[in-house]
Amino acid sequence: MRLTVLGSTALDSIETPFGNRKEILGGSATYASVSASFFTPVNLMSVVGSDFPARYLSMFDKRGIDTSSLEIKKGKTFRWKAKYNYDMSVATTLSTKLGVFDGYMPEVPDSLSSSCNLLLANIDPDLQNHVLKKLKPAGLVACDTMNLWIDLKKRSLLKLLKKVDLLLLNDAEARQLSGEEGLFAAAKWISSKGVKMVVIKKGEHGALFFSKKLGFIVPAYLLEVIKDPTGAGDTFAGAMMGYLSRCRKINDRNLRRGLVYGTIMSSFAVERFSADGLIKTTPKDIRDRYSHFEKLTRF
Amino acid sequence: MRLTVLGSTALDSIETPFGNRKEILGGSATYASVSASFFTPVNLMSVVGSDFPARYLSMFDKRGIDTSSLEIKKGKTFRWKAKYNYDMSVATTLSTKLGVFDGYMPEVPDSLSSSCNLLLANIDPDLQNHVLKKLKPAGLVACDTMNLWIDLKKRSLLKLLKKVDLLLLNDAEARQLSGEEGLFAAAKWISSKGVKMVVIKKGEHGALFFSKKLGFIVPAYLLEVIKDPTGAGDTFAGAMMGYLSRCRKINDRNLRRGLVYGTIMSSFAVERFSADGLIKTTPKDIRDRYSHFEKLTRF
Repeated sequence: MRLTVLGSTALDSIETPFGNRKEILGGSATYASVSASFFTPVNLMSVVGSDFPARYLSMFDKRGIDTSSLEIKKGKTFRWKAKYNYDMSVATTLSTKLGVFDGYMPEVPDSLSSSCNLLLANIDPDLQNHVLKKLKPAGLVACDTMNLWIDLKKRSLLKLLKKVDLLLLNDAEARQLSGEEGLFAAAKWISSKGVKMVVIKKGEHGALFFSKKLGFIVPAYLLEVIKDPTGAGDTFAGAMMGYLSRCRKINDRNLRRGLVYGTIMSSFAVERFSADGLIKTTPKDIRDRYSHFEKLTRF
Repeated sequence: MRLTVLGSTALDSIETPFGNRKEILGGSATYASVSASFFTPVNLMSVVGSDFPARYLSMFDKRGIDTSSLEIKKGKTFRWKAKYNYDMSVATTLSTKLGVFDGYMPEVPDSLSSSCNLLLANIDPDLQNHVLKKLKPAGLVACDTMNLWIDLKKRSLLKLLKKVDLLLLNDAEARQLSGEEGLFAAAKWISSKGVKMVVIKKGEHGALFFSKKLGFIVPAYLLEVIKDPTGAGDTFAGAMMGYLSRCRKINDRNLRRGLVYGTIMSSFAVERFSADGLIKTTPKDIRDRYSHFEKLTRF
């Protein structure tokens, strides 16, 4: 099934202990789309400014990502500047310039096919609600979020949770959203808000899958070097939803494999700056790492 | 094969967000022995004072733990007082009273059978070196350590590493010992000091096994409540070495299962204060949790 991805497309300036990059391709929809495109046809729904480099558009094209719902608006592309210390689990935002995201409301033409799965990648929950309502997707609906929206738009986020099948968020966000310290209790609280399945991402410590009760624990793929953790969570969500879109059935086996592909793809993403870790990856690299991960975890 | 366990036996006073306990049974050799005793006959080598409660001695007896090398010296049992906050990964030591451990040098009579595996649980590396030299065990030798000994007795610890097969330590200790931030690099550094296998324990995030290269990644068994994390690492080491002592061969398959038993047993240990989580566990509980963990992790 086709996967529609709503989220941000950005130009990031990132500093980590392993280097500095200025105005590189970023954004939740970018990471999620590129990651998902290894598994299924993707429709990217986002907005960029007229300053958005054409080479990135042609990269999307080359990867078979449909950009007909990527609006190009007069003005500046969304820019995010951030810094990571040696503990790369938390980014310090140095500046955020909304640019064309200021006042953006995605167009969802009636002609757009609703026979798709939908990934509402991290973005303002008002936009997530809007697209979900207009598109009425026939398939699986997943969403991601971040601390900012839990702070500023919790009501809108809770409204969304009633209507999505799967929420992906990290451990700190799960604690913040639920007010619960323990991840079991946090997942239970979140499930009580109407969402059927919850993935709690723990960064370098793996991920947990809950469907009413705890269903699956997956460790992370240990890396020698992490150059830039930006987009790891978006990549995870994109891979999981991309893989599930390729599957005939959403069953326990495929959900588990979806989480493993999330793990594998995010391990590629963080090995380089921007989405380069994904772009330079081949289907064979993915198969090899998946099979290595199987060997590393079986007992 | 029989397992000899050297380590501390203590009376702990512990405060966690879930309660306070005074003068409860503790010590690295206690947790490791009780944990190992589910898998193999154990010989406990340690020292206690004349104030050590007889009920603990009879608990060791009931569990089939041979206490003929547990010296009872005139004086006070080693006491440790500590506090945990909500982040239970680090204990704050409030006081340490060595008692009979001051000047303790384990007796290793020539008559003692060397046809055993040996677990040098966390204790002064001078004592670990002494026992290893005197006992000359025929089987597998493992050791554990802590930040204190890395600070105070690094030379003695490095001398020990040349002679042991397996080192178990936590992630912070691996970083401290090696001076390396990345766990891959830390394990490589440690391996270069002569030890053949390294287990890096990551507490609630699982454990990693290295034998020259990364061999196995195991997540932790997620718990709803952790009441007292004291002894989790000692329990892990005891279970792993206990399980391996029951196996005919030390091969890849059994090493992986040993780590899983370490994971399972430490999950029981932290559910109650002191060694009560272990003592109240039955072989059926262990089988059930092992099988639940298999279900939670396979894909």
